[in-house]
Amino acid sequence: MKYSHLFGKTIKDIPKDATLKSHQLLYQAGFIRESTAGRYYFLPLGQRVQQKIIKVVKEEMDRAGAQEILVPILHPLDLWKETNRDKADFGLLKIKDRRDMEFVLGGTAEEMLVDLVRKFQISYKDLPFQLYQFASKFRDELRARGGLLRVREFIMKDGYSFHASEDDFKKEYEKMSKTYTKIFERVGLNTFMVGADNGDIGGDYAHEFQVKSNAGEDTIFYVPSKKMYFNKEIAPTMATPFDQKGEEPKPMEDVVGKGIIGVEALAKFLNIPVEKTTKTILFETEKGDVIAAALRGEYDIDEIKLKRIIGCQSLTLIASEKIKELTGAEVGYAGILNLPKEVKVFLDDSMRGRVNFEMGSNKTDVHVINVNFERDLPLPEKFYDFKETRAGDLYPETGEPYEVFRGIEVGNIFQLGYHYSKKMKGATFIDEDGSEKPYYMGCYGIGIGRTLAAVVEVSNDDRGIIWPESIAPFDVHLIIIQNSKVKTQNDNSKVKNFGDEIYEKLQDVGVEVLYDDREVSVGNKFADADLIGIPVRLVVSEKTLQHGSGQAGEKIEFKKRTEKESKLLSFDEILQKIKK
Amino acid sequence: MKYSHLFGKTIKDIPKDATLKSHQLLYQAGFIRESTAGRYYFLPLGQRVQQKIIKVVKEEMDRAGAQEILVPILHPLDLWKETNRDKADFGLLKIKDRRDMEFVLGGTAEEMLVDLVRKFQISYKDLPFQLYQFASKFRDELRARGGLLRVREFIMKDGYSFHASEDDFKKEYEKMSKTYTKIFERVGLNTFMVGADNGDIGGDYAHEFQVKSNAGEDTIFYVPSKKMYFNKEIAPTMATPFDQKGEEPKPMEDVVGKGIIGVEALAKFLNIPVEKTTKTILFETEKGDVIAAALRGEYDIDEIKLKRIIGCQSLTLIASEKIKELTGAEVGYAGILNLPKEVKVFLDDSMRGRVNFEMGSNKTDVHVINVNFERDLPLPEKFYDFKETRAGDLYPETGEPYEVFRGIEVGNIFQLGYHYSKKMKGATFIDEDGSEKPYYMGCYGIGIGRTLAAVVEVSNDDRGIIWPESIAPFDVHLIIIQNSKVKTQNDNSKVKNFGDEIYEKLQDVGVEVLYDDREVSVGNKFADADLIGIPVRLVVSEKTLQHGSGQAGEKIEFKKRTEKESKLLSFDEILQKIKK
Repeated sequence: MKYSHLFGKTIKDIPKDATLKSHQLLYQAGFIRESTAGRYYFLPLGQRVQQKIIKVVKEEMDRAGAQEILVPILHPLDLWKETNRDKADFGLLKIKDRRDMEFVLGGTAEEMLVDLVRKFQISYKDLPFQLYQFASKFRDELRARGGLLRVREFIMKDGYSFHASEDDFKKEYEKMSKTYTKIFERVGLNTFMVGADNGDIGGDYAHEFQVKSNAGEDTIFYVPSKKMYFNKEIAPTMATPFDQKGEEPKPMEDVVGKGIIGVEALAKFLNIPVEKTTKTILFETEKGDVIAAALRGEYDIDEIKLKRIIGCQSLTLIASEKIKELTGAEVGYAGILNLPKEVKVFLDDSMRGRVNFEMGSNKTDVHVINVNFERDLPLPEKFYDFKETRAGDLYPETGEPYEVFRGIEVGNIFQLGYHYSKKMKGATFIDEDGSEKPYYMGCYGIGIGRTLAAVVEVSNDDRGIIWPESIAPFDVHLIIIQNSKVKTQNDNSKVKNFGDEIYEKLQDVGVEVLYDDREVSVGNKFADADLIGIPVRLVVSEKTLQHGSGQAGEKIEFKKRTEKESKLLSFDEILQKIKK
Repeated sequence: MKYSHLFGKTIKDIPKDATLKSHQLLYQAGFIRESTAGRYYFLPLGQRVQQKIIKVVKEEMDRAGAQEILVPILHPLDLWKETNRDKADFGLLKIKDRRDMEFVLGGTAEEMLVDLVRKFQISYKDLPFQLYQFASKFRDELRARGGLLRVREFIMKDGYSFHASEDDFKKEYEKMSKTYTKIFERVGLNTFMVGADNGDIGGDYAHEFQVKSNAGEDTIFYVPSKKMYFNKEIAPTMATPFDQKGEEPKPMEDVVGKGIIGVEALAKFLNIPVEKTTKTILFETEKGDVIAAALRGEYDIDEIKLKRIIGCQSLTLIASEKIKELTGAEVGYAGILNLPKEVKVFLDDSMRGRVNFEMGSNKTDVHVINVNFERDLPLPEKFYDFKETRAGDLYPETGEPYEVFRGIEVGNIFQLGYHYSKKMKGATFIDEDGSEKPYYMGCYGIGIGRTLAAVVEVSNDDRGIIWPESIAPFDVHLIIIQNSKVKTQNDNSKVKNFGDEIYEKLQDVGVEVLYDDREVSVGNKFADADLIGIPVRLVVSEKTLQHGSGQAGEKIEFKKRTEKESKLLSFDEILQKIKK
């Protein structure tokens, strides 16, 4: 490809909202343009990289025995009704055609895959199998981030596996975890398998593939001694100890503190450390159960953890009127003293071993201090961990502090179990004994655009992108330098002709070349080459042509994007270098 | 791929509504499944073929210098408003996200491409270029046909070229016509370039690539001596002569024929040939002009032709009340006698040279007979051709009858001219003289799924599909025959082992193999192989193994899908055959 002919040339400006390096560089180097927020055009350079990533993913998925298919983008809403996902609160884009048929724009395709598979009579002999596709996916995100990291439309590889048993699924899960690690390695990403939440489905088989990067939206908690990673949402944590050794229980007393709400203000007002305050929150589950969850004041509740503990699907904050009815007090004064019996109380482990702590009194404007277990409150049978994990927290099993870093989630793998196959009719196979059973499912996703952006986030310098060879838009960036001060036009055309020759010869042997044939300054050409980030830069100039000629062949300047030094090499030497 | 592992096996049944061969075969052989009418799942076999077609298209588009990009599927409705296409009567699928932003699901992407290109400052030096993509496209068709021929969602290759001048566009058009012919040749289709209508855009540069097939929806008119093809909508035609030589004009007279409407009934009532009747239709244009169009009774009006003649964008039939106002008569009695002056009269060339013809009188229940030009009506300055072309019609330039056949439109190329660039702000380039000018555009589409179906329509026999090598899902269909009556299990495992070995060895040298390793009857395996239609079938059995061994190597039965006879060949001989 001649650069003069390429659509989407480099530009110095960056969009106002481009705060992320990948957004800035992909824009400046001519890889992407925004259509509307969160929806991107892939320019020729960007599309080349996207396709190379897709090719790597496809190769590894095929190698793992998965089979590529293609699913319509418009999913019949009726299918989503079968699993009650039509009412899901993640923004579904719905559409009606002129025959009044309703569809959902595919965000994930579990229902579609079950619908496809149930069109066939499946027996245990057909299992297991995995089907996958590359397709545009839609998320009605309220907030899109700059660049390709959080978008509303993107190409995703989504795979779905079908099994006769959970044990069989586990083998596939193991295989996929290796396949994913290999895929990301091949595209130049070092990923961590991070334990994650699996929504309503639950279970232990849910992992994200995260790339360490400050541009990431996720907070990852790492246990060095175990080499384990957890997503913030589910990282188990032990409260940091608050030393109260030797403190004697004091008499419990009420303190009137009108209108003082919030633990910081309260601690100040009561002149006690915030660690002595208590947060009590009242929730209602989807079944109507009322829950009181209490934890040490400086912590917040992690609803995902709490839902898992309770075993419910949703938690709704109880409205102020109902709080008054339940506790007798306005919002802000709830505690676990004197609650009606119907309220189920859960205490976080940050409550363990406390002495003389504060708590809401369930009377408006009144706080109780010097509360103590056993005397004022029964010691619960069990303390739980439902606090939001924070930097500095300890991993309970080893007691060591977490290392915390930011991550970009580029892929995920998780069990679906029987979640879909039990909700959707006919999602069964005939087992060896002739009985009809629901199949066990798994699900495996990779965001292609986000993977592309993650590579740029971790592989760049102040001059531009540094593409790994495996997914670079071109193998070689060839530059000719025509001297404007040259004595005769002849010398320039010699350079041009040699450049053209190298361009053709490289392509003949299958090397992909971006050939900067423009009549612009050397500085511009070098800056553009660095910005675009193709792994190898070749320069042909009057100077390089002076070195060697005849049998030895003219020399070409060879430089890797990752190295500072260039070398003068012959065409054959360069070919050898590139083939490595 | 082992057939035992393949998802989407063959089936004997066909869907009730599957009347087309391609629909039946692609379903039975396990290439596609319907999601909802007009939306298809591509199963692993189908997706392999689809991708091979895409690869061929991509190679030829790249060779022609076009650059691949990717455009979001959700197009901002605001862009479509710029060109007034948001109100188009072809079913647009519109959607609103939860931030109330409105989008159109992309059917074609002209506005998006202009929007993308205007984000860059384009100069004459950047022109010409062509950008193309492969993307899911949506059409809210009222009626979907079975299989992949008329669908509501499909992958299309759509390309858009940008030029400094019409002349430059013509070069691209010429190049694309060759590129398309080559693409279709490579996938096994013989296509005809058929002159077509270009909607509002008009101009002579609009051609469809049609495959001759009775499954096609289009009627193609062919001029043998000129080797020219026209789509029915625009095929120029000369009325078949109706001999009235020597007939003397008779006195014009009114005939009362109450309630007789329609030319057939009228001809019968008047006892005249239908060729002596006249059809007169009154239309209104978008500008409010009233048009009367008259032609010989047995013909129908081709509104596309008539619009081109008038130079208007829309023609609406005039409502009965307005007809009464204009002509003084109820609907069904309009003629061109005594019409108000404001009505513009257009006569089809089928009216030329008529003597003693019938016509509506513009009086309710009354027909006039023996109307004659010059005496009763002025001879018009010009006769036009706005009749629907019919089999038997003559090509005006040579006077020869058309050959008529049905065609499947697999691609089209056409000029957009300044249609979009003049409507959309900033759709300009800086010319050599520094002035800002709109660019001239062209557009080039290929329906990938329809191309796939067209191949099946033209390449099958009563046993199944016959894939061309270039896009077959696999190169080789390998079958092992294990004899159930064999004396020892040993002989069967010898066959199995040799089959496995051939499978591995073929894959090692890059041959794509579908390996039928199942324990089912020979008859089933052969029938499935013929149905699926892979170009080469290899059979390994006890019998083939008995031929040759040792240095000469074991023999394998080789048969092409297109041939009846099989041969016993060694592995090396087979490799040579496949590489051809």
